[in-house]
Formats: sequence, C-alpha cells, structure tokens
Amino acid sequence: MIGPEIERLIQLLGKLPGLGPRSARRAALHLMKRRESLLVPLSEAMALAAEAIRTCEVCGNIDTRTPCTVCADPTRDRSTICVVEDAGDLWALERTRSYRGTYHVLGGTLSALQGVGPDDLNIASLVERARDGAVKEVILALNATVDGQTTAHVVTDRLAAADVTVSRLAHGVPVGGELDYLDDGTLTAALKARRPF
Amino acid sequence: MIGPEIERLIQLLGKLPGLGPRSARRAALHLMKRRESLLVPLSEAMALAAEAIRTCEVCGNIDTRTPCTVCADPTRDRSTICVVEDAGDLWALERTRSYRGTYHVLGGTLSALQGVGPDDLNIASLVERARDGAVKEVILALNATVDGQTTAHVVTDRLAAADVTVSRLAHGVPVGGELDYLDDGTLTAALKARRPF
Repeated sequence: MIGPEIERLIQLLGKLPGLGPRSARRAALHLMKRRESLLVPLSEAMALAAEAIRTCEVCGNIDTRTPCTVCADPTRDRSTICVVEDAGDLWALERTRSYRGTYHVLGGTLSALQGVGPDDLNIASLVERARDGAVKEVILALNATVDGQTTAHVVTDRLAAADVTVSRLAHGVPVGGELDYLDDGTLTAALKARRPF
Repeated sequence: MIGPEIERLIQLLGKLPGLGPRSARRAALHLMKRRESLLVPLSEAMALAAEAIRTCEVCGNIDTRTPCTVCADPTRDRSTICVVEDAGDLWALERTRSYRGTYHVLGGTLSALQGVGPDDLNIASLVERARDGAVKEVILALNATVDGQTTAHVVTDRLAAADVTVSRLAHGVPVGGELDYLDDGTLTAALKARRPF
C-alpha cells in the first residue's frame, strides 16, 4: 500500500524513544509533507552528526571533538570530577550552569540482571584520573535508583586507592515540590539532612 | 557545551510531532549512542524517502510512485472514490482492509481562520474524476470536526454537477466504547441512526 522507502522510514522512526508505531507514522507523514523544510535538513543533520560524533578520550562524554568541549575548556576547575551515568545527565547538569568542574561518564550502571559488571563501565579510567594529584574531590551524581546506588558504592570502593574526597548529590525535597506528593524515602532523607534556616 | 552538529540535530528532532525539547535531546542521545544501528540507517532512510516521494497525480496521495500504489492497482474498484483530508487518513482506512475502492486526498480542510479556501484544496480534480462516467459513489471520510463538516458540505455542493451518489461515514458508538464516556452528540447520533438487531 505504501512504498518500501516509506515503510522503512516509519520502522526506523519507531525506534526513537517516545515514538510508538502510530506516532512514527504521524512523524513520517509530517516529514514527507515538509520535504524541503524538514526531511532533507534532518537527514543531512543526522549524516553530519554521525560523521562528527566522538567519544571523549578523557571523560567518555559524547561530543564532536575529543577531548570534549568541557575537558578542553581551560577555565574548568580540574580539581573536581563529577561522575554521571551517561552524557544526558552531563547535559542536564551543564544546563544548570552551577557546576564548573569536569565530568566522567561511566556509560551506564552496574546491573546484575543485564550482566553489566564493573569492567563494562569506565571506572578504571576514573580511578586513573583521580590518582592524578590535581584532583581533590569526586562527586557521584548517579541516579537515586538501586542500580545507581550500587554503582556509587563500587566506585567509592575503587576510589579508596586515590587521595580524594568522595561526595554525592543531596537527597531532599525537589524545589517547587509539595510534601504531600513525596514518597516516604525522600521525606525521611530530607528530614535527616535538615539544615539551619 | 556540545558541538553545533549535535545542537542542530536536537533542534530539528524537536520539530517532529510528539517530541518536545526534552524528548528531542533524549532522542538525539539515543541516536548518537546507536550510531551504526540507528543514526546512519535513519539518515539514509530519510535521504532515500526524500528522493523517492511523489504526490500522486490522480488522487493526491503521498507515495513513491505516481499514480500511487492504490491508483495503479488494477484490482481496485474504480466506481467508488473515498475522499480524505490527508494521506494519514488514507493509511488508516487502508489498514482496515475493508475498502477496495480508490481515494482522493484533499490536502486539508477549509478553514476561515487559517485562510484555507476551496481553491487551496484538491476539489476541482475530484469533481473532474467524479464526472467520468465510471464513478458511481463518492464517500466523504472527513473528520467529524467543524472544519471537516464544512468541507464536506462544500465538496457535496461542487459534486452536484456530477452524476454520483455522495455518502458519508456513519456516526455512532465506537466499537469497544462505553456509553458512559461518550459525548451527548455521539450518543444522539447513535440513537437516531439505530439499526434493527
């Protein structure tokens, strides 16, 4: 009923996060109706990005250069390394504009279920960086999930060999959040970590 | 913070229906992590689709050939034309496998607000096709919205010159639907159009 080129486009669009089979069809139609203004530019942007992307040899970030923009920036504070699960978390922290140190992207979390062990993550290169005398603090900015916290413990163990302070993000009430909607774990953590007003 | 190629990819992905700025970032990251298995194939599929897409010279459908697959199919019943707003509606009807006639894609609906008049839609070519002696019935499969119904009236007026029966899709209770959740208009229509059991 429709050409194989269009079928394949729909099938591949359906692999994007957030697009199911129905929305992939809608996206394909949207693209085909906007051939010059969207379909062709997006195809070219993807080809350019595929050509340009590099994994940073220092921190594991995804960027179009290696060392990545953050690692190459001379104004960054090299005494602090913020450890994140993946590049999306790094982008989220960068958007806050409240961190001026460097990063280290693990590339995932440990997962017994999915068979991800410590050697599958960029932990060894983190320990190597941390042993460099210039680094004073490693901040673990891992997700507050079971896998994220397991990973945090293992990373902390490995970092014992390096002379650095290991810290983690604060748990507490999200800014703008209402207590009534928070889970017990978060409320308990917020209460325990209360600060003078 | 990230390369211009990646920024542009995120910006263009955000123009797809169903993807906002945040999900466009997630989609870009997803693509970049799957360079060989998704980013490159999707870029190529888009380039191929951009090259291949044609608007059917007969019915206005979007396909990779003209006349489109439906118009070129010799087994299709040429005595019936089903009028739809756009190619997505044609695809939806084709998926039902319950219609074996041909189609006519208007390319939108009349809209006073958006300045879409009868001459902006493929109505003239529909009237021309309907005047061909072989066509017996025109089915209006337009959305049950105000604009869709206005368009249905205008199309019907124009078709008065042709010797065809004009019909529309039935209104009623959606299959699997619960009466309690239906609006009054649909219930009234379903009651009026009741059928012997």
